[in-house]
Amino acid sequence: MSKIRDVAALAGVSTSTVSNVLNGRANRMAAETLARVEAAIAELKYRPNSTARQLKTGYTPLIGLLVPSMANPMYGFIAREIETLAQERYGFRIMIGNTYRDKDKELRFFDDLLAHGVRGVIIISSLIDEQHVEAAAERGLVMVSYDRRATPNMTSIVDHVTVDSFESARIATQHLIDMGHRRLAFVTPAGRTMSRNEKIAGFTAAAKAAGLEGSARVVEGTPVDEYGDSMMSEVGRAQAGLLAQLPDRPTGVIGVNDLMAFGLMAGFRDAGLAVPEDVSVIGIDNVFLSTLMHPAMTSVRLPVPEMAQVMVERVMSRLADPAIATEEFIFQPTLVSRDSVARYASGKR
Amino acid sequence: MSKIRDVAALAGVSTSTVSNVLNGRANRMAAETLARVEAAIAELKYRPNSTARQLKTGYTPLIGLLVPSMANPMYGFIAREIETLAQERYGFRIMIGNTYRDKDKELRFFDDLLAHGVRGVIIISSLIDEQHVEAAAERGLVMVSYDRRATPNMTSIVDHVTVDSFESARIATQHLIDMGHRRLAFVTPAGRTMSRNEKIAGFTAAAKAAGLEGSARVVEGTPVDEYGDSMMSEVGRAQAGLLAQLPDRPTGVIGVNDLMAFGLMAGFRDAGLAVPEDVSVIGIDNVFLSTLMHPAMTSVRLPVPEMAQVMVERVMSRLADPAIATEEFIFQPTLVSRDSVARYASGKR
Repeated sequence: MSKIRDVAALAGVSTSTVSNVLNGRANRMAAETLARVEAAIAELKYRPNSTARQLKTGYTPLIGLLVPSMANPMYGFIAREIETLAQERYGFRIMIGNTYRDKDKELRFFDDLLAHGVRGVIIISSLIDEQHVEAAAERGLVMVSYDRRATPNMTSIVDHVTVDSFESARIATQHLIDMGHRRLAFVTPAGRTMSRNEKIAGFTAAAKAAGLEGSARVVEGTPVDEYGDSMMSEVGRAQAGLLAQLPDRPTGVIGVNDLMAFGLMAGFRDAGLAVPEDVSVIGIDNVFLSTLMHPAMTSVRLPVPEMAQVMVERVMSRLADPAIATEEFIFQPTLVSRDSVARYASGKR
Repeated sequence: MSKIRDVAALAGVSTSTVSNVLNGRANRMAAETLARVEAAIAELKYRPNSTARQLKTGYTPLIGLLVPSMANPMYGFIAREIETLAQERYGFRIMIGNTYRDKDKELRFFDDLLAHGVRGVIIISSLIDEQHVEAAAERGLVMVSYDRRATPNMTSIVDHVTVDSFESARIATQHLIDMGHRRLAFVTPAGRTMSRNEKIAGFTAAAKAAGLEGSARVVEGTPVDEYGDSMMSEVGRAQAGLLAQLPDRPTGVIGVNDLMAFGLMAGFRDAGLAVPEDVSVIGIDNVFLSTLMHPAMTSVRLPVPEMAQVMVERVMSRLADPAIATEEFIFQPTLVSRDSVARYASGKR
């Protein structure tokens, strides 16, 4: 079993430098030094002693992770990135719960985390009212909220890490406009979250800038209770069936996320429309399954590994130093063009 | 906050009956009584006090869950089922780790579970050599191994819960044979697991029974390190490209799992072959995404909720009573026919 001084010797640094890396205090460290320490940790398979650490720090080396549902491939991807990083760099394990963006389930999970001695928490939820999250932070949880910004004009003791959801929908919409589409739709399940509201705003802003307010519609399906199950896609499939029947049906459609867009593509096919010849479809998330669709689906990439890294680093840094001020970290999305979008042919219906 | 006596009163049973349900001792309880107690627990949102329980039992109310990768939708689905059941019925949370079927990563996770006071473990791995799992059980972990049978002719102190993998591949193969296909292939990544071996045996047995040994091939792709990432599908995509070029190319192809089969369908398309007109494809797992493929993919359903329930119940029962003998639980798969298989037209190449 390697010791911290073995890591220090291999990296050519002091043991306190290694300790700084392990405890999330690498902010002001030269990138080259950090890389050397991480390489030494990996090579020696060094793992901090968790019992000793808990006695010293007063918390257990676990991070609580709340996800809407592990069955959604996007959350599975994020969870894997978080777990791998927490474990390999910091020796922290993950206590996970499916909370379905349900405030009561989230509250019960916070209670359980406190009972287990867990202090670091990453919550994926995006509920508009985040008071219960702030309240849990006041009870001592070091909290990072993913997929939403901080509430405007309110002091927050929670970090926020998110992609710019307005921009995600805006660039998807702009792509359809650039390809000649004039009748547009954005499809989301009923039930607003902060990220959904921002996406709707991004869609509307892009349409308005192109003078298309009159022919860009926001379509709300039924609510989705079981995130990431088949349900999100089923809502998309049903909505595509309804859109297909409209006399002025949209020719360019955006799903609130990839699962919704997968359902939209299937639903348009069910209705006898070809994607992209009759209708173009774009998703948001860029899960790896997008490339396996037929046609391969255009989507908006979120920088998941980068966001996961910031989330884990913020938890570790603030566990080490509770005086660090909370921040908002906004990442930019990028469009990944594939085969589900075609140029609008004006002669066609 | 509800107490155990409130649950007992509502269900019309004694508090010790409720306690038996909570501690996994419901084996000999009438189904009707169990249902009544569970309904009362749900209605009152009763949750056992975890600190009191830990002091009394000596272990923390967590189940360790090792998965190859949370990014694979199949493992995400199983993990969600396990977490929901453990939490809602027993008040247990889940400590999860991505272990990529890597023996060293599994061993480190067992160490961490013991260090955290966790005693109940569900491992999804299917490695052929399970000695390290048996050894961890000897160190005090109550262990359920998923996706493989017990090692033949060896006493095991580990429960085994699995679908009949031989049968999964056999019924998929038989379906292709029934549809007139004579040139068959079964595609798997390199690197054998017990479930992969059983699937290969099931494929071979069905081909042999139909006198097709000479035209049924097992194709091994490159190894897959990052389970559930894009990698499994990429292997399928590459192998489809190679199969498409064979002079006697197979007309019926089975993927070791759905992600492999998604890649096969995409790879055949890349090569200019139509699914199912030119080549039929079947997956195994029946993840919900199968219905969203184009064409919708025929697959083999595994009874995941039922298997998850047995896994959680076994952990809870054996935590309550270490004298319970370990067992093997084998579940039967069923074919779900969709649109990726066509009858073989003998006139065609």
